[in-house]
Amino acid sequence: MPEIYPIEWSNEKLKILDQTKLPKEQSVIVASNYIDVINSIKSMSIRGVSVIGIAAGYALTLAAKSVDTNDMEKFTNYIQTIAKEIINARPSVVSLFQVVNRIYNNLSSLTSVQEMKDFIQNEAETIHKEDLAINLKIAKSGESLINTDQTILTHGNTGALATSGYGTALGVIRKAFESGKKINVVVTETRPFLQGARLTTWELVQLGIPTNLIVDSAAGYMMANNKINSIIVGAHRIARNGDLANEIGTYSLSVIAKENNIPFYVAATKSSIDLKSIDGGSIPIEERNENEVINFNDSIIAPKSISVSNITTDITPYKNISAFITESGIIYPPFKNPLISI
Amino acid sequence: MPEIYPIEWSNEKLKILDQTKLPKEQSVIVASNYIDVINSIKSMSIRGVSVIGIAAGYALTLAAKSVDTNDMEKFTNYIQTIAKEIINARPSVVSLFQVVNRIYNNLSSLTSVQEMKDFIQNEAETIHKEDLAINLKIAKSGESLINTDQTILTHGNTGALATSGYGTALGVIRKAFESGKKINVVVTETRPFLQGARLTTWELVQLGIPTNLIVDSAAGYMMANNKINSIIVGAHRIARNGDLANEIGTYSLSVIAKENNIPFYVAATKSSIDLKSIDGGSIPIEERNENEVINFNDSIIAPKSISVSNITTDITPYKNISAFITESGIIYPPFKNPLISI
Repeated sequence: MPEIYPIEWSNEKLKILDQTKLPKEQSVIVASNYIDVINSIKSMSIRGVSVIGIAAGYALTLAAKSVDTNDMEKFTNYIQTIAKEIINARPSVVSLFQVVNRIYNNLSSLTSVQEMKDFIQNEAETIHKEDLAINLKIAKSGESLINTDQTILTHGNTGALATSGYGTALGVIRKAFESGKKINVVVTETRPFLQGARLTTWELVQLGIPTNLIVDSAAGYMMANNKINSIIVGAHRIARNGDLANEIGTYSLSVIAKENNIPFYVAATKSSIDLKSIDGGSIPIEERNENEVINFNDSIIAPKSISVSNITTDITPYKNISAFITESGIIYPPFKNPLISI
Repeated sequence: MPEIYPIEWSNEKLKILDQTKLPKEQSVIVASNYIDVINSIKSMSIRGVSVIGIAAGYALTLAAKSVDTNDMEKFTNYIQTIAKEIINARPSVVSLFQVVNRIYNNLSSLTSVQEMKDFIQNEAETIHKEDLAINLKIAKSGESLINTDQTILTHGNTGALATSGYGTALGVIRKAFESGKKINVVVTETRPFLQGARLTTWELVQLGIPTNLIVDSAAGYMMANNKINSIIVGAHRIARNGDLANEIGTYSLSVIAKENNIPFYVAATKSSIDLKSIDGGSIPIEERNENEVINFNDSIIAPKSISVSNITTDITPYKNISAFITESGIIYPPFKNPLISI
């Protein structure tokens, strides 16, 4: 199997596979300072909750390296400023906040700027490795839910490109395929950003897994006509009661799956569970620029004067979810509240 | 209110507003023979069940005019051949068949080629006028279902561009607006052909009706968050039990509407009811070229090697439908079988 890596840390630089250029070209951005990384997050050259978090660690590493001081207070203040900038690159993505905090909160115990710099880089690399290990555990947990000769529908991109290099929901599917099961994958194109059409299909082609691409609204037809055995999606964030915030369209899929008695699984790291969010209602909903909807690859598809709502996350109630697939195993209903004690 | 006409018969020619060019430009195709009309149907420059049927009448008119014979048998045979060609332009569109048959079946009672030629043209013009009258009746029937300060979601294009010039589902919405009700319309972009983004929004802008464009998969979010008061869609075809064949995504909307207790209305001419189709399972499902999905306005959005299912109709079971709005009034459940005696 070929490996796909969305980012690679090498020679003190972060190499970023520019996901806005896929599937047309495999173009690499070489980020030599933290601003390049922030810009890549903002432009969605890097996207997907996990890899955005990992990139945040390297952004802090690059920022730390660039500071020429031995004054620990000055250094810490600088890092704090950069940390805020990083979080603001995409405030709704919880991994940015988690990674930046994990690194920053540990600096106070260190005794020199050099120690801090080393710690930041080590921690960034550790976070990167941990994510890959967690992905592999999720894949192993979930693989048993897929039988041979089944067709699995997935939405958005939750594969190598969204993570350290294996994936969550798509990792489960990949693992089933690697285990020798004959499977088919149905991929929704996932408007507006087309992660499904552009990225998930690209990954599946690299991996040689049989795939069918559909428009988002054809998923209902597929489910009603017995063409789908199960659905596996990822998570932007999970509330403590199990309500799921994910790519727009996830809620609709869950409702139609329930109507047709199709299992609806969520594959996610335990770190996606946000104990501070009581339920789905307390998770912020992301609304992105309307150009994503009306400007399609530089081609305008609607009258310019039209008003657009580009809501890009929705909330799936826990009662529509058949199970959560995590690195610690599968969680079946009835779900505890909190869903998991971390 | 400005009027929008997708086709106009004038000076022995059919002027066709090229819907593939909207909303970027208002380009008119002048069809001077029946092949131009067939090509416009195939290329979807003309689209929408009603207007395709009306165009079929004019295609036969143009074909009839071009024949230089007084031999009634020769003439009738020629028209029969053309009739088949016209039906094959888009075999799943039932109006092509209905219009062509309505005209052809009456020829045998006539006594000269000139009489036949006159009959064909008169009948084509009558079908055109009848459709406009029926649209206005549907609009009047349905308008009472919309209250002021409501937001109505619609899918696909069912407006002037899809009909003789007023619309079915969109005609009901327009009528409510013209009656002075304060309404908002939420339009789904309607992938893959983007009738919602390209055509429905364009019509609503011309008419000055407040409109919000969303991607198809955001409809679930809107419904779950009390942003939609009702849904009105059109019909490709209705089975005798009330099952609805319509633009892909209609089924999904109906399931999510039911889950959220939102009324789901179908506005359609009685001629959309196909008594020969026992239920949704007997209506043929249209699958169009995969390029509609992966070639987006000449921009490729998925790996070229990917397999695509471009199913473009789905079936909504009658139990998900709150009422049918027809030219003879509103039909509420429990629906009779057949739905209506025509």
